Amino acid sequence: MDGIDILVSEVGPRDGLQSIAPIMPIEAKKAWITAEAAAGVREIEVGSFVPARILPQLADTREVVTHALTIPGLTVAVLVPNARGAEAALEAGAHKITLPLSVSETHSLRNLRRTHAQVLEEARAIAGMIAALPTERRPHFEGSLSTAFGCTLEGAIPDAQIARLAEGLMAAGCDEVGLSDTTGFADPAAVKRLIALVRGTVGNAALTGIHLHNTRGLGLANALAALECGLTTLDSSLGGLGGCPFAPGASGNIVTEDLVFMLEAMGLRTGIDIDRLVAVREILAAAVPGEPLYGFIPDAGVPLGFNRAADRQPIKEVA
Amino acid sequence: MDGIDILVSEVGPRDGLQSIAPIMPIEAKKAWITAEAAAGVREIEVGSFVPARILPQLADTREVVTHALTIPGLTVAVLVPNARGAEAALEAGAHKITLPLSVSETHSLRNLRRTHAQVLEEARAIAGMIAALPTERRPHFEGSLSTAFGCTLEGAIPDAQIARLAEGLMAAGCDEVGLSDTTGFADPAAVKRLIALVRGTVGNAALTGIHLHNTRGLGLANALAALECGLTTLDSSLGGLGGCPFAPGASGNIVTEDLVFMLEAMGLRTGIDIDRLVAVREILAAAVPGEPLYGFIPDAGVPLGFNRAADRQPIKEVA
Repeated sequence: MDGIDILVSEVGPRDGLQSIAPIMPIEAKKAWITAEAAAGVREIEVGSFVPARILPQLADTREVVTHALTIPGLTVAVLVPNARGAEAALEAGAHKITLPLSVSETHSLRNLRRTHAQVLEEARAIAGMIAALPTERRPHFEGSLSTAFGCTLEGAIPDAQIARLAEGLMAAGCDEVGLSDTTGFADPAAVKRLIALVRGTVGNAALTGIHLHNTRGLGLANALAALECGLTTLDSSLGGLGGCPFAPGASGNIVTEDLVFMLEAMGLRTGIDIDRLVAVREILAAAVPGEPLYGFIPDAGVPLGFNRAADRQPIKEVA
Repeated sequence: MDGIDILVSEVGPRDGLQSIAPIMPIEAKKAWITAEAAAGVREIEVGSFVPARILPQLADTREVVTHALTIPGLTVAVLVPNARGAEAALEAGAHKITLPLSVSETHSLRNLRRTHAQVLEEARAIAGMIAALPTERRPHFEGSLSTAFGCTLEGAIPDAQIARLAEGLMAAGCDEVGLSDTTGFADPAAVKRLIALVRGTVGNAALTGIHLHNTRGLGLANALAALECGLTTLDSSLGGLGGCPFAPGASGNIVTEDLVFMLEAMGLRTGIDIDRLVAVREILAAAVPGEPLYGFIPDAGVPLGFNRAADRQPIKEVA
């Protein structure tokens, strides 16, 4: 990746906002995305093309995508539940489209009302629509293996089923699969085991990213495990928006601020200015007042002597 | 270790209680230690032999040690700031004595009012007292390298200084050195680097444990890094007592409940029953009401299908 070691993919405008009741005004969404991109974040999942009656919080996704596309260098990602959503995403011009496939069929039926076979059929339809586009307009198409680390309804999902579905998504025409700890069941050993399983099935190049939650406090430990396996894209949410770590059923994403601190402290370049990133929280605090924001770095600050990315720029002038 | 892979060393009755203003009644301390040992915790740092005017919260350490020594199989650990404290610890009969040496000399002077040379002199005096005891009464003597990952006053401490002080503690007669992230500055790369540095200096057998804080949310990621280096003793505090992760200057230890969950989920045996462990929080909540308790597992619960240690015991009876 150009000048960075790890791609931090901000999912707050989608996963964060869909998990809270208030609807963030579109001007705040635009300001959030603009400010986070200005802080150095290179990929943002800005919304989801789902019916407005299901997720009114994301009903303005089309307009948000249009705005995000004006930001130079930003990869504009969206979630789609099916081919109809993908059609809207293609029309809007999103750079990256993610289709979730819950490896728990019970969860798939409850969540998307579709069997595995039906979701794979949607994937094939989406791949077909993408293939019909001129090369330069084709978005990156990811199939996300959700509930990969276990399901609140079924518990652990057999390895063979996960491997079969990963193969199925690639055969359907996905460019890549992703692993998603939807339920916050993951632990570092499971992260390493599943990455090896899926990479062993579809190849290393077809699995580069992971979507982790911090439900049980293991989010950054799981991220470390993924890094150690060579994954290079980590999803996270500014302020852990939408999660409530200290409440039952908590399901927040890992916190972008803390993740960026961990990576930069380890010497892994994210391209993100941590001070500017932390400052973006003010937009959230003003736009959805009362919603808790999480993270340690915003309060604790970076340690004395922390090697800020900004400080590592070559010094151009000597006074 | 007998039947376990990782020793979780509970430090709440010392590090947790010294960090909060209320003084926990001694009966609650005894009940806490008893209940946590009954949940399977095999080592507890029960107090510190410091003058009561400095830490009135720990003024009853002698009596707490006496109680803890009645619990079969429990390793009773204490902190001592100097040879005078160690004398009291030896009289009380503690199994393990830890002397902190701040690798930041500025911090050492502020905290213990002693230079490095003076602390090493205390270590020699303590080792001499221990050597004068009959073999079976000699406690394990650890020198803890505090502020090892950086100091709020000095920032990063040079590797050569840390290595020299680790050697100095061993030369003074310590059985072992430990690494302590007093300030919450550690990251997983730094954990691995410092473990390699110190082990390269004093040998693998002389560094088996680490004391981590969760100040910046990286506590469990740092614990994972330590595990991957082969360390087998991890300090933690029930409920993260004494730390306030969301306040400036937060300095809480990693949370025992979440650490035990991570380890057991990874298939590493701790010997600890997580449900009984979580239940011990009720003693803390009643004894120091209003003090925040942290941790994700107590609220989120273990995942569906979690392989509880208790469930792995051989079934002795069939009804």
